[in-house]
Amino acid sequence: MKSVKTFILKHGSLYILDQNLLPGRVEYIECRSAEDVADCIVRMRIRGAPAIGVAAAYGLALSIVRYQAGDLEGLRNELERAYKLLRSTRPTAYNLFWALDRVRRRILEACSVDEAKEIALNEAMRIEEEDIEANRRIGLYGKELIEDGDRILTHCNAGALATAGWGTALGVIRSAVADGKKVKVYATETRPKLQGARLTAFELLNEGIPVTLITDGMVGFVMARGYIDKVVVGADRIALNGDTANKIGTYTIAVLARRHGIPFYIAAPTSTIDPGIRSGDNIPIEYRSQDEVLEIGGVRIAPDGVEALNPAFDITPGELITAIITEKGIVRPPYIENIPRILDL
Amino acid sequence: MKSVKTFILKHGSLYILDQNLLPGRVEYIECRSAEDVADCIVRMRIRGAPAIGVAAAYGLALSIVRYQAGDLEGLRNELERAYKLLRSTRPTAYNLFWALDRVRRRILEACSVDEAKEIALNEAMRIEEEDIEANRRIGLYGKELIEDGDRILTHCNAGALATAGWGTALGVIRSAVADGKKVKVYATETRPKLQGARLTAFELLNEGIPVTLITDGMVGFVMARGYIDKVVVGADRIALNGDTANKIGTYTIAVLARRHGIPFYIAAPTSTIDPGIRSGDNIPIEYRSQDEVLEIGGVRIAPDGVEALNPAFDITPGELITAIITEKGIVRPPYIENIPRILDL
Repeated sequence: MKSVKTFILKHGSLYILDQNLLPGRVEYIECRSAEDVADCIVRMRIRGAPAIGVAAAYGLALSIVRYQAGDLEGLRNELERAYKLLRSTRPTAYNLFWALDRVRRRILEACSVDEAKEIALNEAMRIEEEDIEANRRIGLYGKELIEDGDRILTHCNAGALATAGWGTALGVIRSAVADGKKVKVYATETRPKLQGARLTAFELLNEGIPVTLITDGMVGFVMARGYIDKVVVGADRIALNGDTANKIGTYTIAVLARRHGIPFYIAAPTSTIDPGIRSGDNIPIEYRSQDEVLEIGGVRIAPDGVEALNPAFDITPGELITAIITEKGIVRPPYIENIPRILDL
Repeated sequence: MKSVKTFILKHGSLYILDQNLLPGRVEYIECRSAEDVADCIVRMRIRGAPAIGVAAAYGLALSIVRYQAGDLEGLRNELERAYKLLRSTRPTAYNLFWALDRVRRRILEACSVDEAKEIALNEAMRIEEEDIEANRRIGLYGKELIEDGDRILTHCNAGALATAGWGTALGVIRSAVADGKKVKVYATETRPKLQGARLTAFELLNEGIPVTLITDGMVGFVMARGYIDKVVVGADRIALNGDTANKIGTYTIAVLARRHGIPFYIAAPTSTIDPGIRSGDNIPIEYRSQDEVLEIGGVRIAPDGVEALNPAFDITPGELITAIITEKGIVRPPYIENIPRILDL
């Protein structure tokens, strides 16, 4: 794979690729603390639910590793501080909370400061490794759903850049291509932040997978013309009934896919499934700055004084989802029965 | 109305507002010939089906008025040349062909060069006046469909800037507001050329009508949240069965409106109806330069080497359209019976 790495751990710092600068510039931000990582997550220098989870795990670990005093009580206070800070960065992607809870729980098991530091970094590294492995397995299951010659629509970026590596939706496509299947990808540009145009097109071009860019408003057109065989997208949070939060615009694509009889697949690790909620009604939706809509690349596109709405995600009801591809296998409806089963709940 | 004029006839030239520069700059392009006008249409300095029709009529008239020789035969050759040139500018909007055919037919009735010149300019001016009058009547009929407190979604720009004045979809909204109804407009930004963000927001702000800008991918979200009571959009060409070509993205909105039980209205003069075609399958769709998708405001947003698709319009099937608001009244299904009736076919 020729694509750049989402993050690099080096000399006790986490270097995060600034995805806001892609595809024009490849630059890494050095993160030495939970604060640094939180800032990258808030500004969407790193994005994509699995990647946010891994970054947050490292953020928490960095704060523990750099803890100077020798007492466990103080370390636990520092842990709670960093944990709360990182949890507050973005509200929708479940992997953030899942990863932070997991690292925190393990650190609390430590009997000494030194042990806590070792555990913290090891657990973050394990989460990163497991995410890559999960993506590979998602690809393994998902590629069976892809046929030679398929034209696949994807939205936003659910690629290597959105994860620790390989990708969820793009991982399925990569695995199918690695198997010798010929596929063509239609990538929506994904306003406001253009992750499709900037990141998905970048990843697929790097790998020589044919990709055609469309605006978000062209999805209905390409489906009506018969250009699309399948839709595969990622997810930010999945409820037990299959309702799925993903990048704004996903719901619109799912409604169109249903009208045109096109299979609509979610590809996500089980760490994206929130076992605490039964329905998408309970998934909090992040509203981001109006400026992301009113400006493109810092250039104002709308007249001064106009208001904009900027929800970062929408909810696709489980009834519109053909199947959810996880690292534990492909989950099909009825989700309210089959999702708890795959989670061993 | 405080908004700027779409075109101004002065000293024998047609001055066309360069809509590509809005809302940042208000500049007019002096057109002295069919070539000048054709160039403005091709570059979308003027856009919107009714406005294109009026501009083309003036373009044809300018070529006749500036014809130097004295023989009617030569004038008719010049007429055919200018007519063909202007017809070839854009393929989808029916008003272009309707207006050019009308002016040409009238010019061919002239018995002298002087008469032809007088007829040409008078007919173009009549088309402009009739378009404003048609928009006013569309507003008169359409406002009855709007209730006090309605939150209306519109796409692209079907306002004063897309017509000779007042507007079709925005004309309905303006007329409802003039009647004392309070409405709130959700305007899609309308990639790739951002007519919603640049033009619709501009027009509505100028008039003090509340407007919220959303990206094209947010339509499903705002409908699912219950933010939208009605959809009103314009049209570029309507077939006898009600199938309607309009700005790319319209079909997607119609599918979503149907799912959410939201009335979906087309507002257009009867000059947008093509009596020669029975179905949207026969409407030619213009494909424009990939650069409109790959760049925003001249700034490249996608990696080099990526392909883009750029259909400028899509087709909304008549079955998804609640009613078509024309200057001759509101047409409801079955369109294949009621559209020919309103056209006196």
